[in-house]
Amino acid sequence: MVPDMKIETKSNLEEILKQIRLLLLDVDGVLTDGAIIYTDQDSEIKRFSVKDGLGLRLLMDAGVTVGIITGRRSGALTARCRNLGIDLVYDNVKDKVAALEEILDKTGIGANETAFAGDDLPDICVMNRVGLAIAVSNAADETRQAARLITEKKGGDGAVREVCELILKAKGEWGKIIQRFSR
Amino acid sequence: MVPDMKIETKSNLEEILKQIRLLLLDVDGVLTDGAIIYTDQDSEIKRFSVKDGLGLRLLMDAGVTVGIITGRRSGALTARCRNLGIDLVYDNVKDKVAALEEILDKTGIGANETAFAGDDLPDICVMNRVGLAIAVSNAADETRQAARLITEKKGGDGAVREVCELILKAKGEWGKIIQRFSR
Amino acid sequence: MVPDMKIETKSNLEEILKQIRLLLLDVDGVLTDGAIIYTDQDSEIKRFSVKDGLGLRLLMDAGVTVGIITGRRSGALTARCRNLGIDLVYDNVKDKVAALEEILDKTGIGANETAFAGDDLPDICVMNRVGLAIAVSNAADETRQAARLITEKKGGDGAVREVCELILKAKGEWGKIIQRFSR
Amino acid sequence: MVPDMKIETKSNLEEILKQIRLLLLDVDGVLTDGAIIYTDQDSEIKRFSVKDGLGLRLLMDAGVTVGIITGRRSGALTARCRNLGIDLVYDNVKDKVAALEEILDKTGIGANETAFAGDDLPDICVMNRVGLAIAVSNAADETRQAARLITEKKGGDGAVREVCELILKAKGEWGKIIQRFSR
Repeated sequence: MVPDMKIETKSNLEEILKQIRLLLLDVDGVLTDGAIIYTDQDSEIKRFSVKDGLGLRLLMDAGVTVGIITGRRSGALTARCRNLGIDLVYDNVKDKVAALEEILDKTGIGANETAFAGDDLPDICVMNRVGLAIAVSNAADETRQAARLITEKKGGDGAVREVCELILKAKGEWGKIIQRFSR
Repeated sequence: MVPDMKIETKSNLEEILKQIRLLLLDVDGVLTDGAIIYTDQDSEIKRFSVKDGLGLRLLMDAGVTVGIITGRRSGALTARCRNLGIDLVYDNVKDKVAALEEILDKTGIGANETAFAGDDLPDICVMNRVGLAIAVSNAADETRQAARLITEKKGGDGAVREVCELILKAKGEWGKIIQRFSR
Repeated sequence: MVPDMKIETKSNLEEILKQIRLLLLDVDGVLTDGAIIYTDQDSEIKRFSVKDGLGLRLLMDAGVTVGIITGRRSGALTARCRNLGIDLVYDNVKDKVAALEEILDKTGIGANETAFAGDDLPDICVMNRVGLAIAVSNAADETRQAARLITEKKGGDGAVREVCELILKAKGEWGKIIQRFSR
Repeated sequence: MVPDMKIETKSNLEEILKQIRLLLLDVDGVLTDGAIIYTDQDSEIKRFSVKDGLGLRLLMDAGVTVGIITGRRSGALTARCRNLGIDLVYDNVKDKVAALEEILDKTGIGANETAFAGDDLPDICVMNRVGLAIAVSNAADETRQAARLITEKKGGDGAVREVCELILKAKGEWGKIIQRFSR
């Protein structure tokens, strides 16, 4: 008899989500819609999502560590991370795998307990080395193919919030959070 | 015989809209599309809607008080509120219910005469305490479930204008306004 | 026999477009998508369309005067108008009809040779006084009802370019322009 | 017998793509969505795409020269080009054909080995003089008609990335790139 692959796969994904202790994120195209916005004065502007922000805070409150791995550097990202209380910021990164290894070493969290969300080709090498590879819905085709989980929302438009909720639901934390907010 | 719930509900909503003397608004995701935009210099940019602005002015002209309750603080919000003539601005708020109570106390307006529009989980506690709980169409699922009225438009893209028009129409003011503008 | 109203109406519109010597524009929601963007330093950012810009230049090259009537004032609008060579800028206007009359007086162009494009209630009074009242596709309902011509494109996303092309085509200028650009 | 024009045409396009040694780009509407964004201080902001950026870098890595021909000038474009390593920047250009000729002369690359991507009427004259004329999907009608290749994506939203991938695929480079990123 052919096993019901879909159900097996889904319950397996929930098991993986439940184990996640570290969520790592690419920035442009994941925490933003991929816009690189320059002013005349050579400074950069970044557009984040307020709903992603709440999701990340709730995730950190529930004990999941959140970190950033990005090839670019900007004051805008620094401001957003400070605002959200994210200390683990690896920006201006040339070798994303080396950054991943440094983070795993520093936090003592295993690769199998780590999720990474990306949107383009330079993210695939990290996605191939973590327990849960995530692509945003509007990621490059090859990045989507490398992902175990593809979000329904686009980068910068709720994809990260969606990931946070999935992890919190798998851990059985979401119901408690809603109850707390509903008082 | 089963009563026609839909008609009953709708006329009831109009009755509630008619009683509104105070409209309170969350900012990010309600007066904006939820974008948190940072520059390199750690300053924040906010994108409001010109149509929301006219709606709020017409509502205030008709004697309805408008106020802001938000967890964030920015010069951009201050500028927008000054531009629209909104004095009742509670920003950087940690406890939204305490802010609501302070506003009701200060204005002498009852909670049952108050509407509040939100888009995410921290808004639910205020929504549960006012006469008319409003969620924008793209609010979080749980926030939509806590709402009595869900707008057709998205936050930052006309949701607040829609609310203003609904209140002014329920109060029988909209026809007069259009007549005045059509001269 | 009932006359074919639709054909009559369309040819009548082309006749009106052909007569236009002055195109007046509201700014927010017409030359922009209606976003009011503030920085922390209380300065305003405006987002225009490069395609609208070319349309306006081609229209001016063909001898049609272009002017602005807006209730707001910003350095961003001033910069855009200087960039496009528009001198007739009436900003910070409290009485749009008075501004219209001043412009007609100054230019010596008749109201019947004038088009005005708007998107919201304060534009209706001007629309009622010119030869061609235009509303952008995403204008307020009542503004659309006051319009003789409703664009297919939205404000800030090609609506003004569409108007410029319609006027140039009615005047028989478009073909010559395309020929010039196609060398 | 009637030849299968469609297949012939497609294989012919791949042959042209394979020969491309120089990709020239208009800026507003091609590398951006056509937004002209001004601040109060008369400086300009431009919004580029991070995915376009990676595409251009991969194309340059594969030995294709990339250049810019634009009628406007801004510090934002200068910053973006420096960031991407594009040296061949012709901005503030009044005569796009003269700029093309200067670039061909300087690089020693033939017009038939050159692609140019545009979105509006002033781009047609360059499109008519190169081996591969490209229009973004949301280009002006007449510009689309002048194009041999029309992208599926819009300007500023992946159109340039799409062009880069098409060239790299025709040259047989894409598979190697994906293999390198998938390690």
